[in-house]
Amino acid sequence: MNEDPQERPTAAQAEGTGTVKVVFTPSGRRGEIERGTSVLAAARMLGVDLDSVCGGRGICGRCRVRLAEGTHPKEGFHVAAEALSPPNEVEARYDRVRGLGKGFRLGCQARILAPAVIDVPPESQVHRQVVRKDADARPVPMAPATRIRLVEVPPATLEAPAGAAERIRTAFAASWGEEYPAAAKLVIPPALLPALQPALAAGKGTVSLAIHADPPSAPPVLVALWPGFRKEPVFGIAVDVGSTTIALHLADLATGEVVASSGRMNPQIRFGEDLMSRVSHAMMHPGGTAEMTAAVREAIDALIGEAGTEAGIRAGDILEAVFVGNPVMHHLLLGIDPSPLGQAPFALTTNGALRLTARDLGLGALPGEARIYLPPLIAGHVGADAAAVILAEAPHQAEELTLIVDVGTNAEIILGDRNGLLACSSPTGPAFEGAQISAGQRAAPGAIERVRIDPVTKEPRFKVIGVAPWSDEEGFTEAVAEVGITGICGSGIIEAVAEMRMAGILDAAGLIGAPEAVGSARIVTEGRTHAYVLHDARREGGPRIAITQNDVRAIQLAKSALHAGARLLMDERGVERVDRIVLAGAFGAHISPLHAMVLGMIPDAPLEKVVSAGNAAGTGARLALASCEARAEIEEVVRHIRKVETAIAPRFQEHFVAANAIPHAHEPYTELRKVVDLPEIDFNAARRAARDAEGGGRRRRRRRS
Amino acid sequence: MNEDPQERPTAAQAEGTGTVKVVFTPSGRRGEIERGTSVLAAARMLGVDLDSVCGGRGICGRCRVRLAEGTHPKEGFHVAAEALSPPNEVEARYDRVRGLGKGFRLGCQARILAPAVIDVPPESQVHRQVVRKDADARPVPMAPATRIRLVEVPPATLEAPAGAAERIRTAFAASWGEEYPAAAKLVIPPALLPALQPALAAGKGTVSLAIHADPPSAPPVLVALWPGFRKEPVFGIAVDVGSTTIALHLADLATGEVVASSGRMNPQIRFGEDLMSRVSHAMMHPGGTAEMTAAVREAIDALIGEAGTEAGIRAGDILEAVFVGNPVMHHLLLGIDPSPLGQAPFALTTNGALRLTARDLGLGALPGEARIYLPPLIAGHVGADAAAVILAEAPHQAEELTLIVDVGTNAEIILGDRNGLLACSSPTGPAFEGAQISAGQRAAPGAIERVRIDPVTKEPRFKVIGVAPWSDEEGFTEAVAEVGITGICGSGIIEAVAEMRMAGILDAAGLIGAPEAVGSARIVTEGRTHAYVLHDARREGGPRIAITQNDVRAIQLAKSALHAGARLLMDERGVERVDRIVLAGAFGAHISPLHAMVLGMIPDAPLEKVVSAGNAAGTGARLALASCEARAEIEEVVRHIRKVETAIAPRFQEHFVAANAIPHAHEPYTELRKVVDLPEIDFNAARRAARDAEGGGRRRRRRRS
Repeated sequence: MNEDPQERPTAAQAEGTGTVKVVFTPSGRRGEIERGTSVLAAARMLGVDLDSVCGGRGICGRCRVRLAEGTHPKEGFHVAAEALSPPNEVEARYDRVRGLGKGFRLGCQARILAPAVIDVPPESQVHRQVVRKDADARPVPMAPATRIRLVEVPPATLEAPAGAAERIRTAFAASWGEEYPAAAKLVIPPALLPALQPALAAGKGTVSLAIHADPPSAPPVLVALWPGFRKEPVFGIAVDVGSTTIALHLADLATGEVVASSGRMNPQIRFGEDLMSRVSHAMMHPGGTAEMTAAVREAIDALIGEAGTEAGIRAGDILEAVFVGNPVMHHLLLGIDPSPLGQAPFALTTNGALRLTARDLGLGALPGEARIYLPPLIAGHVGADAAAVILAEAPHQAEELTLIVDVGTNAEIILGDRNGLLACSSPTGPAFEGAQISAGQRAAPGAIERVRIDPVTKEPRFKVIGVAPWSDEEGFTEAVAEVGITGICGSGIIEAVAEMRMAGILDAAGLIGAPEAVGSARIVTEGRTHAYVLHDARREGGPRIAITQNDVRAIQLAKSALHAGARLLMDERGVERVDRIVLAGAFGAHISPLHAMVLGMIPDAPLEKVVSAGNAAGTGARLALASCEARAEIEEVVRHIRKVETAIAPRFQEHFVAANAIPHAHEPYTELRKVVDLPEIDFNAARRAARDAEGGGRRRRRRRS
Repeated sequence: MNEDPQERPTAAQAEGTGTVKVVFTPSGRRGEIERGTSVLAAARMLGVDLDSVCGGRGICGRCRVRLAEGTHPKEGFHVAAEALSPPNEVEARYDRVRGLGKGFRLGCQARILAPAVIDVPPESQVHRQVVRKDADARPVPMAPATRIRLVEVPPATLEAPAGAAERIRTAFAASWGEEYPAAAKLVIPPALLPALQPALAAGKGTVSLAIHADPPSAPPVLVALWPGFRKEPVFGIAVDVGSTTIALHLADLATGEVVASSGRMNPQIRFGEDLMSRVSHAMMHPGGTAEMTAAVREAIDALIGEAGTEAGIRAGDILEAVFVGNPVMHHLLLGIDPSPLGQAPFALTTNGALRLTARDLGLGALPGEARIYLPPLIAGHVGADAAAVILAEAPHQAEELTLIVDVGTNAEIILGDRNGLLACSSPTGPAFEGAQISAGQRAAPGAIERVRIDPVTKEPRFKVIGVAPWSDEEGFTEAVAEVGITGICGSGIIEAVAEMRMAGILDAAGLIGAPEAVGSARIVTEGRTHAYVLHDARREGGPRIAITQNDVRAIQLAKSALHAGARLLMDERGVERVDRIVLAGAFGAHISPLHAMVLGMIPDAPLEKVVSAGNAAGTGARLALASCEARAEIEEVVRHIRKVETAIAPRFQEHFVAANAIPHAHEPYTELRKVVDLPEIDFNAARRAARDAEGGGRRRRRRRS
């Protein structure tokens, strides 16, 4: 009753010979095919993207198409309703059981009898584009590495005592050999052997195989199997293992749709706040690597559980995972001692893309055979997270020269366009994450995250995480009472320092002016330096949140390192400016481009060309999960990235010193100055002048003694 | 200082150009090579089997050769001492450190300057033959799948941030690409990643890699690595997993030499004595498969520990294992429910050869990455043990038509020669193993294992396992006092029944004669049948060991099944007799060919052509361990074996009935009768005559009523 695509010539003969013209929309692919050919077979011959899971057996319904009846002037022919064979038994059964939809046909059953225009709806395309919520990120066509494939396996007989594994392999090669060049080499992992005969028995010889092939030319691997036809989707996870947080997305492997997300702090934080302290932990404590590996794997297992529960799916249906992370996170996830990454030459244990199993990673929440992909690392400090960012932002396909900055304890910096990419990392330290800042804290409820300072009154207004109104808006006092104001996080510090610069509280050298020079009671003097008080709740038993001179110095060191790294890449590329700047990383999502530029974190560029990519690493991980073509792409791109090592570049130190000024000692920041005023002040000169006036002679004398 | 084989042309130039003749012994390979070529390079060019582990660095000493000085009339030239370059620095160092041996040179250092005959001693040949203790088994050249390969890995640098894995892969491909076609695809398992940098650091970039390549054309796999040059051997195990006993041999992977052996009862016996009762256990008890799998794996782990301790080696140095067993043992080892093997069509889960890791098998005593090989199964009842027997006996290479019989609960029977092989199994049941026999027991100390009966006096003499003298020899009484006489094992029963037949105690139909008919007080009457008492210790509180009529019937059923299976294959092959019979299996080693033939277990053949192969399955496992060429061979042979299924063969029943007589109802046993007398007696006829004489009328009357 089912049509075997292998029988095509016979079927064509039954319908009468000769060829007919067929056009597929929306692809526009067209050709002459034998009259009587099934729509699915025609689609395959013409390279049209038409899905099928059951291999043309009329079971899966993935090949639903619609005949575009009527006159098609562009094609020069009329499509009659009779252009397709009438609906057959198989389609009638499918319609009864699962509903075919008005006007729809099963492509594997309907045969083309006369010139036809056939529309393939998006849900019938394998390579439909990944559904993206953030409109500015790149769309990628689906090309999942793991797909469900139905096979009918003949029973064992006394005469032909082939094993179940061998019969499944043979049936798979016969039904799916066209799509998998190495189908005859189907790998059946030893752990799945015990499941074969029970599935065959329960499905009476019909089984749905989860087949993984990455790249598609590689021998396919059986990842799971179920009796009969499995119509429920299977899932994968994309995980961004950051040093601070771990974020997980659970997505449908066929559509790319994210069905649940979960996230939590990286529990390795208890072994060290930042990357280098974790490397130290590994170096100083025997078993430290194992502790940190176990911690991150446990957290991932827990996140998988949470996401699965949220989406209402069984962990056994999660068959793929992509992990991205910086080199230290990457190595710790794999159980590799990261100590060599703590000092030059920052030797990686492995830099290539890795394909392994959940069992290899010791992840208990996934089936042992679930396939894991880790994109390649770029260099000792530029990780798979940076590779994922590249995948998400695709600078290698851009005409514009793009600078991508992923800010963290180590900034990962990428520069390039379609002519090539350069990468480096720069040791910014943890100041941008609120560490080493007097009132600094992590981005959490109660933290000041945004700051504005009136250039005339020098009075601040700010926004607190978890509180909707700004500090000068109605309802703030009531709303903030619940969470309190506990500190200032990285984005708040950047905005505060940049606002202080624009308001004339801070000069280009980074010096906070004295109260009388600034003309504000918010400036307090502490020893020989000054601080700007954003909020003082000490009378109510709360903290004082001020930006001290030391805070500004810490931010200056961090941003100088970042800027110097970017300049180094620009030197290598031989350019003085970039066309576009992308701020990546979870933190990048919260940085105001204007303030980043006032601070001189990034080189000058038209402000509208400075964008936040949100969690681009996570997006890249999702793309790699959705498409093995994307994996091949990033592996190819990474192979050709030129790595620049800041630690040995003689000009890095020079750039670092020049970048200390706010925004910069040598760069004109022409674009920036078009939109903001940067007061030309020099508090040091003013102080010197004041000192000279009141008794500078003492200092000069002291120096001589 | 070390010579790189890549630099050959340069070296040749340095020595002056032109070619010289070189002959290698014992291979006889010869050719013209560039003057100045190293002996190792010349050997490779000419396909001479000359070993090297360090890749020509003068470290391993595996390429030691000797110049055959003097006149070689056969070759037509004289070999001068100067035919090789003088010993160099590297050789001098090797000689100081490890001793080169008088007259020996390092093949990688010595260059050929004039016509030379070079002798490659056996220890410098990779493919030297496996040392065999049993002289009659086939010798197989070594071709180990796992070998040690030395590489020198350049350090990571800031400019070239390739990972340790990638640098090792590149160095391996550069040094060993000639021997491994897929060297650039070296697989480094995830579990080994953490070991890479520590080994490189400890070895200052020089590491010894254990490389597994099976087949040699497949991408090689890293199985272990050590810092620097590892000169200690690595090991493998060959394990015969029998339903009754598990036997393990630990062998040096480079030489094939067995360094330790261990064995124990298969602990699955507690779930069922024979195969079918274990299949029943799996069918009837949830978790039964898992219990039996865990039991056999634990036993194997324990045996590995014992053998390792005996040989004084670390379990971490055992890098390969070969397991053979019948299909039920094979499936249980893999954790596969054997239930489908309990009934037609005896569906296997997998029949192909399997390559997996110790981790896949859950063997804790081996390194997780140790490579496991399981030869193919032949059919639902003909296992990897039979495949191993074929490998050991090589009937597929024989001119003689060979019948191989592996006796167990199921007899596995192979028939064939170089023109093709046939295989079947036959359900003999456990009688040959002492089960279902009144005084039967397993072969263990105290069991009667051999029996002789004087044809005149009808008195027996016998041998007891664990007691050196026969029962009629001096010292027997004292010696037997220690172990006692506890029962009779399979070989004892076979000999006893056959001896009874030859002594006229048993007729051709299998009937034990009455005391008066036999004329011996050893015959006792029990109900309507008789028994022959071999030994009666009941007065001393011991057992009575007798062969009862039921015992004879059980043996008749078993041997009929065996004989019928063999006949079925002979029918298929269209022959009436075979040239040679091999009795395989641990049990086969103890069967007397004469007695087996008197009993009619096997077809007629010249007695000197009936041989025992000892534990041929274990020998086959060792060959597969020693040589991946042997693995390829057995896989190819098994692919072409014709399987004959006794359960559906109409003639099997017919053969079975005819084989009930001792030795056989239809076969003349001409060869057998040349060496023994088989009395033409018929106790039934005698009994009928006696009954008729004393009142046969009664029986006839009863029948009518």
